[in-house]
Amino acid sequence: MDAGILLIHCPDRPGLIYAITQIIYRHQLNILGNGEFVERTYNHFFMRTEFSGVVEENRFLQELREVLPADAYINLTARRKRDIVILATKEHHCLSDLLIRHTFQELNARIHCVISNHQNLEDLTRKFDVPFHYIPAEGKDRAAHEAEVLDVIQQYNPEFLVLAKYMRILSPAFIGRFTNRIINIHHSFLPAFVGANPYQQAYDRGVKIIGATAHFVNDNLDEGPIIAQSVIPVAHTHSAWEMTQAGRDVEKIVLARSLKLVFNDSVFVYRNKSIILE
Amino acid sequence: MDAGILLIHCPDRPGLIYAITQIIYRHQLNILGNGEFVERTYNHFFMRTEFSGVVEENRFLQELREVLPADAYINLTARRKRDIVILATKEHHCLSDLLIRHTFQELNARIHCVISNHQNLEDLTRKFDVPFHYIPAEGKDRAAHEAEVLDVIQQYNPEFLVLAKYMRILSPAFIGRFTNRIINIHHSFLPAFVGANPYQQAYDRGVKIIGATAHFVNDNLDEGPIIAQSVIPVAHTHSAWEMTQAGRDVEKIVLARSLKLVFNDSVFVYRNKSIILE
Amino acid sequence: MDAGILLIHCPDRPGLIYAITQIIYRHQLNILGNGEFVERTYNHFFMRTEFSGVVEENRFLQELREVLPADAYINLTARRKRDIVILATKEHHCLSDLLIRHTFQELNARIHCVISNHQNLEDLTRKFDVPFHYIPAEGKDRAAHEAEVLDVIQQYNPEFLVLAKYMRILSPAFIGRFTNRIINIHHSFLPAFVGANPYQQAYDRGVKIIGATAHFVNDNLDEGPIIAQSVIPVAHTHSAWEMTQAGRDVEKIVLARSLKLVFNDSVFVYRNKSIILE
Amino acid sequence: MDAGILLIHCPDRPGLIYAITQIIYRHQLNILGNGEFVERTYNHFFMRTEFSGVVEENRFLQELREVLPADAYINLTARRKRDIVILATKEHHCLSDLLIRHTFQELNARIHCVISNHQNLEDLTRKFDVPFHYIPAEGKDRAAHEAEVLDVIQQYNPEFLVLAKYMRILSPAFIGRFTNRIINIHHSFLPAFVGANPYQQAYDRGVKIIGATAHFVNDNLDEGPIIAQSVIPVAHTHSAWEMTQAGRDVEKIVLARSLKLVFNDSVFVYRNKSIILE
Repeated sequence: MDAGILLIHCPDRPGLIYAITQIIYRHQLNILGNGEFVERTYNHFFMRTEFSGVVEENRFLQELREVLPADAYINLTARRKRDIVILATKEHHCLSDLLIRHTFQELNARIHCVISNHQNLEDLTRKFDVPFHYIPAEGKDRAAHEAEVLDVIQQYNPEFLVLAKYMRILSPAFIGRFTNRIINIHHSFLPAFVGANPYQQAYDRGVKIIGATAHFVNDNLDEGPIIAQSVIPVAHTHSAWEMTQAGRDVEKIVLARSLKLVFNDSVFVYRNKSIILE
Repeated sequence: MDAGILLIHCPDRPGLIYAITQIIYRHQLNILGNGEFVERTYNHFFMRTEFSGVVEENRFLQELREVLPADAYINLTARRKRDIVILATKEHHCLSDLLIRHTFQELNARIHCVISNHQNLEDLTRKFDVPFHYIPAEGKDRAAHEAEVLDVIQQYNPEFLVLAKYMRILSPAFIGRFTNRIINIHHSFLPAFVGANPYQQAYDRGVKIIGATAHFVNDNLDEGPIIAQSVIPVAHTHSAWEMTQAGRDVEKIVLARSLKLVFNDSVFVYRNKSIILE
Repeated sequence: MDAGILLIHCPDRPGLIYAITQIIYRHQLNILGNGEFVERTYNHFFMRTEFSGVVEENRFLQELREVLPADAYINLTARRKRDIVILATKEHHCLSDLLIRHTFQELNARIHCVISNHQNLEDLTRKFDVPFHYIPAEGKDRAAHEAEVLDVIQQYNPEFLVLAKYMRILSPAFIGRFTNRIINIHHSFLPAFVGANPYQQAYDRGVKIIGATAHFVNDNLDEGPIIAQSVIPVAHTHSAWEMTQAGRDVEKIVLARSLKLVFNDSVFVYRNKSIILE
Repeated sequence: MDAGILLIHCPDRPGLIYAITQIIYRHQLNILGNGEFVERTYNHFFMRTEFSGVVEENRFLQELREVLPADAYINLTARRKRDIVILATKEHHCLSDLLIRHTFQELNARIHCVISNHQNLEDLTRKFDVPFHYIPAEGKDRAAHEAEVLDVIQQYNPEFLVLAKYMRILSPAFIGRFTNRIINIHHSFLPAFVGANPYQQAYDRGVKIIGATAHFVNDNLDEGPIIAQSVIPVAHTHSAWEMTQAGRDVEKIVLARSLKLVFNDSVFVYRNKSIILE
């Protein structure tokens, strides 16, 4: 590793930045960017350091552990493309956007395959030379379908799963295998309109703004840590369908932005919230 | 009346605009602005016409009724300042903003008085020569307190009540007296975070955007027709208190914008939604 | 034609809506949507009517001309997909987005071909079965290059040209052939940062918001009527390159939104401004 | 001083954070918040530290100077309310907003007086028990008027001057006395529409978004470092006057937000840009 990102979070106490940067300095690493944050409710310290220079990993981590609290989270990663698998259903807009970014090297990830419970996105996916796995759900119970999906995923050993409008609910068992490693785009401005048909709900309610939320998936539907959100104004002149269309443009941009943050090691998860240090 | 606004809504059918504008033309009124909208789910027609010219009201309305469906809503008002009463509690920001706009003739309304269940906004209100009524709620049940509030309101016979951070829940009986005439500012991006402490909820959830919603009050808490909404981005660096502060700036601007729309006769209410024709 | 859109603009005078809707009614057309606007500086009237029903075009237009001022603009079009040609250079993001929307039938247009002065977007274009014409500019003067481009365009006889990050300046002679029919996306929040390298300019100036503008092209560079604009917040932490990346997401969404408006006959051009009636 | 803010900027070099935090640690100060940023074009380092604890100022600054480059900017301030003077002309909206925030202790500043070249804001100002100085400009050349204004300012010895819609151009000589200490709100989204009547320009151009910019004033009109910006959407239905009204709501919020940043020692100025560390 000759360049990397160091993430640390732990209970705050005096001298942490000094102690950590001393070790970085002793290892002759060059800090390219540094960010800290202290959450005041729980007095918890977060630090993200981007550095260049060759690091002797074991010794470096060992020295950090010596100066940090015993329960500190320490994560050292080389800068690299992340390995991902995308799950989709029928809607193309998020998948299209990711395939385009991927093909032009703008995603900081390698899309190993796309898995869908429908077949209509196969043509699109293959245009970009990405493997497509059609795993229909009809006639199977959820466990059986998930087992098939998991089988395919495991062939690729991805670091992250991206739910690009994947419309099936994942079981806690499935999610438990990928803690803070599944990113979903929710077609609504969470926590408003939890559940299905958020644009119909928005229309019925006459809202003046709609939005989208990218978040990690944990075991409660639509309730994982929020990574990014965005909105656009709408009016009574928008039908529920036009709200859907407008919402899709927001969804694809928000999902891409959240992936940029996650793949760049900029997102801490702490007590079901995200702390973002860029 | 030598200038006014005509609002009509009714089930749609061919020839409505033609029939209505014919009558306007025959009465030699000059259309300054005109807007129509047809809601497609229920096929319902909305039209707002701003005109100049002297109108013989009874004959004009009679002729309109002859060409419109029997259940048509027809509302003809002269352009004029609206008579309002403001209810507040302890927070000043919305009241301050309205008093300032009022004193500089920017509100299109006459504030007849401010009523509050606390006393701390009295000084502010009196600076602007607006009567202030302190009606404490302690030691009274809701009905008794509301009766006192209603007594004061009735002295002024206002067309609209504005809840400028009035933190008490109004009874259905009270609300029923002012259908579509009470405007509230909700400290959240409805329907998210219904209820108390929305900024604490937003903080706990780590949202990236907060907002405010101005709406008419009907008998379900925070569920009347939405008039205007707006948002601002926040980050994990905002404490719950700082979210509150940022939210206040949104609240005061959104409330003022909604009042401009309502006082300018630009808002139809239909099936718990607002249709806005400016 | 059994459904269409009627656009009219002319100097305002009393009775216009009445006179026009009378003719629509006599022709037994059903108004699906109607919008009017009167520009107050020049007292100019605009009206857009979407209708269903079979219209006898010649007689309908003749009758309209009889009741409207002699210099009225009258445009009657059937609802249909528009025929377009896209010009691009090297950047893919706007072209990608349009090709995706096109392939999923979301563009209300037929992309007849893509023309570029570089070759790098050929693969992308061909993936979507759209003809690609590479017309290099090197070693040619502008007139010669434009003549070649024009030759290709004329094979397809498009109604609109879309400049999807086409980085060459078009001559007035070229533009003159397509008045109000060339749509450009400008990589800046016009009129700020006219000219090249707007994101570098934005970075140097330390702006906190960047944006994009879709506009018709007329003979002054970047000064045609604005159709749509949007912005996103940035910070000092964004390098000029990151501002470019963030700007691209805005550009592609704004261009698509402007095309939706134009292809849906919702945009009037009047005195170098757009009037948008949806 | 038992709590304060330390600002440092200097050319970047390895070990800066370590060296600085070591001194902070030795002085037994508790870091409440810390932010760093390295500007990559010029490789320049910025750091802002909020701390609690009693600091022996001279020794602390001396030790910092020993480990930092010779040309480092070092600024140590106690947390405190800032002393300001406001200059206004005729428009009330920014002044009103600041007076309200001041009276409710939300400004982190003491408004020592308001100076205006018109008299119409005197009543407003006196309502809030703030001295008002009317210094008419008629019949005086700029130098003479400025001399009078300066005389009044000097009685109060303010740290910052806030131009709350002050419509007179200040001379370089005047500005030179208050480098990076004059904050202006510009009625436009800079650098668009530099100069007078920006809303008329926006109207003539048919823009779809308008905005406001708060910035430090230096010797080129409207070209000092930008502190904060914001925008709102508008449409062709807005007259130039309505754009002005909508713009005012943006202006007052942006000015207040910029003052919050400046008075909280969160703004560095570097090469005519602001670097904001909160």
